[in-house]
Amino acid sequence: MKATVLIRPKEGILDPQGEAVGEALRTLGFSVTSARVGRLVDIDLETDDPAAAETALAAMSRDLLANPLIESFTIEIEGDA
Amino acid sequence: MKATVLIRPKEGILDPQGEAVGEALRTLGFSVTSARVGRLVDIDLETDDPAAAETALAAMSRDLLANPLIESFTIEIEGDA
Repeated sequence: MKATVLIRPKEGILDPQGEAVGEALRTLGFSVTSARVGRLVDIDLETDDPAAAETALAAMSRDLLANPLIESFTIEIEGDA
Repeated sequence: MKATVLIRPKEGILDPQGEAVGEALRTLGFSVTSARVGRLVDIDLETDDPAAAETALAAMSRDLLANPLIESFTIEIEGDA
């Protein structure tokens, strides 16, 4: 079963990388109000049970993928795999 | 108008960061077959026209956000902003 974890800097947390990207886009002529940069992790799980997958992915995100102090995460599980 | 660009290493492109994440997850006891790590950029655009936003985001991705040689990108525009 395939899933994607989206990891973003929390609201209010400074994101210098996003500010640099926003500034670069404006320099290139794009009308961008703001940009924030995060990470994504595509994970292929052995389980085929969506509920078990969701539980495992939340644990992975808390334990390893995200820094819960400064980052929030969203789990997206593919319809079927 | 808010949108997200998802950037992933192309199929067949080596992803050492993803391999490290997969290995770390297995070490922690999670049953993970594979993991691939990419980036996401949340962008707030001045335009409210979805078609114009899509065109601008594709140009941004090609010009700055992604490396088209080794990365593919997906554009997700929020239903309304």
